[in-house]
Amino acid sequence: MGTVFRTKRRVEFSDTDMAGIVHFTRFFAYMESAEHEFLRSLGTSVIAEHNGKKIGWPRVSASCDYKAPAYFEDELDVRLEVIRKGNRSLTFAYLFARGDTTIAEGQIVTACCLVEPGEKMRAVELPKLFAEKIEETG
Amino acid sequence: MGTVFRTKRRVEFSDTDMAGIVHFTRFFAYMESAEHEFLRSLGTSVIAEHNGKKIGWPRVSASCDYKAPAYFEDELDVRLEVIRKGNRSLTFAYLFARGDTTIAEGQIVTACCLVEPGEKMRAVELPKLFAEKIEETG
Amino acid sequence: MGTVFRTKRRVEFSDTDMAGIVHFTRFFAYMESAEHEFLRSLGTSVIAEHNGKKIGWPRVSASCDYKAPAYFEDELDVRLEVIRKGNRSLTFAYLFARGDTTIAEGQIVTACCLVEPGEKMRAVELPKLFAEKIEETG
Amino acid sequence: MGTVFRTKRRVEFSDTDMAGIVHFTRFFAYMESAEHEFLRSLGTSVIAEHNGKKIGWPRVSASCDYKAPAYFEDELDVRLEVIRKGNRSLTFAYLFARGDTTIAEGQIVTACCLVEPGEKMRAVELPKLFAEKIEETG
Repeated sequence: MGTVFRTKRRVEFSDTDMAGIVHFTRFFAYMESAEHEFLRSLGTSVIAEHNGKKIGWPRVSASCDYKAPAYFEDELDVRLEVIRKGNRSLTFAYLFARGDTTIAEGQIVTACCLVEPGEKMRAVELPKLFAEKIEETG
Repeated sequence: MGTVFRTKRRVEFSDTDMAGIVHFTRFFAYMESAEHEFLRSLGTSVIAEHNGKKIGWPRVSASCDYKAPAYFEDELDVRLEVIRKGNRSLTFAYLFARGDTTIAEGQIVTACCLVEPGEKMRAVELPKLFAEKIEETG
Repeated sequence: MGTVFRTKRRVEFSDTDMAGIVHFTRFFAYMESAEHEFLRSLGTSVIAEHNGKKIGWPRVSASCDYKAPAYFEDELDVRLEVIRKGNRSLTFAYLFARGDTTIAEGQIVTACCLVEPGEKMRAVELPKLFAEKIEETG
Repeated sequence: MGTVFRTKRRVEFSDTDMAGIVHFTRFFAYMESAEHEFLRSLGTSVIAEHNGKKIGWPRVSASCDYKAPAYFEDELDVRLEVIRKGNRSLTFAYLFARGDTTIAEGQIVTACCLVEPGEKMRAVELPKLFAEKIEETG
């Protein structure tokens, strides 16, 4: 049993497009927000210092499959799961649903990097907190 | 040789995030805009009538691999290629570059659908214009 | 004493820009969301039928004064107040604060309109529900 | 005769909302982009060093009056005018039109500030370049 986190997301008017549905790009912002909420639930943040070094999480890749449209004011169930815990990266899988209807499924791969102003980002090992508190889905 | 379309995209301030780079979600909007510009170059639009029926192109899936960050005021080269022309769908591949540096590579699969107000969208065959003017990369 | 509604808003990563603060355009989306949450609190929605007619609320004007920057993960206090209830319009004033610090103050004037597909929008009197439940600040 | 700058802006699909028109928040992003394009036309950028100091332009206030809706793929004429050149600020007025139809009119007041990482922003006099090249509308 790996790490799973659940939250909810209310569709806002500015998330919709002229087709009357949530614009496909918005699901990526929804995923990111869920990820940050998950990190807060662990007592940390996407922007954090570990051993005096500033860690950031640039995206390596992102994808989404769209199954059914979502509409203004829908309250979506969002399920985040850590499907891979690498030495220097995390892979999150996301599921968006409205009741029994699957709306979208996505993935984001993110690398753990040292982010020092003026320097190139460099991948580093996951901070201890992440290594300890996050378990990859078996 | 399949259908290829090239355009440029200037990074705007509101595309950036606090990491000082283009927010990863924005590349999906860039892809969509390039697609619509491509359709205009064919003399049509993403919203068009064909034989008196209203056609739309909901997204089936979208993905992006991030290779290097893009920055405010960068003028990115955008390359769109039709890598699959199905009976009822199109798959676009995108390449974003700044000079010799590859910034990101993406794909969008989009279905050709009848979109009648108040009715469920239904996949239909590509209108003749698309079938004739677009050639899948061999 | 007029109608006042309070809510909270968490700053998301995608709300920030390369200056490291919430992008100024985002406060307008925050205002709109608070307005819609307020309407839900009245038991209605920004998109509603009244006496069999579809009512919408296009914006007449919007403004914002920026007092102090807001940052990622700030949880802002949002205060909405109806400062004018016209026959066919509502004027909302907004206050954003982080603790004792005022972040921004805004206003949106919105007109009550009939929105029938294919017809020009036409201003109409506020539906009874709005006329009854909303009180302008004295 | 003051400083006037003209450009064009194509409405993108992701600028629209479920009402089928450009979302009202987007005009503020359009204004900002026109401002940055104007600065590039002067040979500078919104992010620039002047005498070895880093200058930024935080927004003091922003407002917009909406006259008529804009639609997907509209190519809007954008007119920027410097209506006030203060010692430490600039006020821009914007006009958006589609042919003879006025779509929106807006204003942005922006302060010239020293932006040093880790320090509070502090208003300073306009750099010489701005003082010389920009003329306020008489």
